[in-house]
Amino acid sequence: MTEPSPNFSKGAAYMNGQFIPIAEAKIPVGDWGFVHSDVTYDVVHVTDGAFFRLEDHLDRFHRSLEGYRLDAGVTRDEMREILGKVVALSGIERAFVAMICTRGVPKVYGSRNPLDCQNTFIAYAVPWVDVIKPEVQERGAHLLIASIPRISPKSLDPTLKNYMWRDFTRGMFEALDKGFDTSILLDQDGYLTEGSGFNVFIVKDKKVMTPDRGALRGVTRQSVLDLCPELGLEPLVCPITFDDVMDADEVFTTTTAGGVMPCARVNDKIYGNDRPGPISAKLKDLYWQKHKEGWHMTPVNYADAEHPFSKAA
Amino acid sequence: MTEPSPNFSKGAAYMNGQFIPIAEAKIPVGDWGFVHSDVTYDVVHVTDGAFFRLEDHLDRFHRSLEGYRLDAGVTRDEMREILGKVVALSGIERAFVAMICTRGVPKVYGSRNPLDCQNTFIAYAVPWVDVIKPEVQERGAHLLIASIPRISPKSLDPTLKNYMWRDFTRGMFEALDKGFDTSILLDQDGYLTEGSGFNVFIVKDKKVMTPDRGALRGVTRQSVLDLCPELGLEPLVCPITFDDVMDADEVFTTTTAGGVMPCARVNDKIYGNDRPGPISAKLKDLYWQKHKEGWHMTPVNYADAEHPFSKAA
Repeated sequence: MTEPSPNFSKGAAYMNGQFIPIAEAKIPVGDWGFVHSDVTYDVVHVTDGAFFRLEDHLDRFHRSLEGYRLDAGVTRDEMREILGKVVALSGIERAFVAMICTRGVPKVYGSRNPLDCQNTFIAYAVPWVDVIKPEVQERGAHLLIASIPRISPKSLDPTLKNYMWRDFTRGMFEALDKGFDTSILLDQDGYLTEGSGFNVFIVKDKKVMTPDRGALRGVTRQSVLDLCPELGLEPLVCPITFDDVMDADEVFTTTTAGGVMPCARVNDKIYGNDRPGPISAKLKDLYWQKHKEGWHMTPVNYADAEHPFSKAA
Repeated sequence: MTEPSPNFSKGAAYMNGQFIPIAEAKIPVGDWGFVHSDVTYDVVHVTDGAFFRLEDHLDRFHRSLEGYRLDAGVTRDEMREILGKVVALSGIERAFVAMICTRGVPKVYGSRNPLDCQNTFIAYAVPWVDVIKPEVQERGAHLLIASIPRISPKSLDPTLKNYMWRDFTRGMFEALDKGFDTSILLDQDGYLTEGSGFNVFIVKDKKVMTPDRGALRGVTRQSVLDLCPELGLEPLVCPITFDDVMDADEVFTTTTAGGVMPCARVNDKIYGNDRPGPISAKLKDLYWQKHKEGWHMTPVNYADAEHPFSKAA
């Protein structure tokens, strides 16, 4: 009896040295990545069969690993190869590709020393999905500035990617309860930070501004800052207050899982015609046009799916 | 060919309606309990084949579930039965028994709405292990007041149990780097809160004090407060500053996973004879004596292991 071929069509994962269907990618309930949220990750997207800014994501993932004293146990070259391989196995041309490193399970039962744990590297590719639904992006998202403040950077460095999303989750419940699409958070001093998995920008005159504090240094955020000059816009990384948001011409959000996503409302403020603003729309178009032109794109070698990883390594 | 009997000797778990060996208890990498730390839990201990303060743990777990808008999908009676069953299956007479509820995986692929998720209840029993090693408890633990502040209660309610331990993990690394056993955290205003999985007490004259803020309302903490009068001690729940800690006669910690654990040092302060203090030692002895006497104990029905859960339910 021959083994049936694994079905990778819903996504492919790499864990413990093996490539497996996404549905089989599971972590032990005792992994500190779960029970202490002692884990970091990054997510890169693939469109038209090519990674976008893969090296920037790898750079950030390695900064996060270092910041948390985690060891993925694979070299950067191996990691790049594994990420390509999970996409190739899945055959998906428009995908999210996650890289994760958990603290793992203690090698000595019951140890409380993080240095006793076997860190675990996981990667997987799954079909694309927008953080904010396409139809919501089309009409412009409605954001609520939640009443809960973002966890202070004194306790949690927001530039090192983490899964400690309780503040975002509370904000999301508040937004949904009040009929908004999603929420954004201020810090304890009242400055704008970010939303659950996305950065925030405001537009005022020709200035395109994003917070200088309390937020991830997003790759899509960086792309917008890079692209502003092409449209004659001035990119600014600066403190942004509640009043600045209310006084803006436009608001948009950015994320790997959706790109540039225009907003139409924040709290009871309606921007322009209650539709995506013209500058947000131009930035969104340029962002995707650049993808088509191959800007920062690294093609996936889909033929790699036919070779076992051990040979390719 | 008959199925081999599952081996529960290293622990037994309940997940998705089934009882399985602990090694098989795994959660999908896409569960929000992992990727958003959107999960709550509680842990109760079993000594001499009986639960300690089971109803108090169930009360707190249900408060956490409600606070996080999670639905375990089983009644309190079913939960109590499942907890007994995982202990009985494992056959362990000195155990930790965890109850966990994760947000789960979205029923609609890619949804960002927590209400779209299938919440997952997990329970398991594993052999006892002390949070602070017995030999360290014997000499008195050395605690470091870490430089990182505890996440603010404005962003994360410390009375609802959660796995968002990054601040504790950073504190633990700092403690280990500096040669301490573990760490305790102050809040942003400089008041004592708690350690990673334990409450803290200080003793001054006949007063036994624990923080009134920034900390879990621990069951062992409550037990100490309950037992103080028996020893002619005055229990106090009050603000505690760094100076109060340095000025104390004794310091001890409390947790389900270890009971009353005396300390000998905090930072460069050495208490008494650099050994567990007399009041800490008396409280520790009384705490375990009370267990022997059956105080708040609920015996496990180990015979239950012989019946499938479906019949017992």
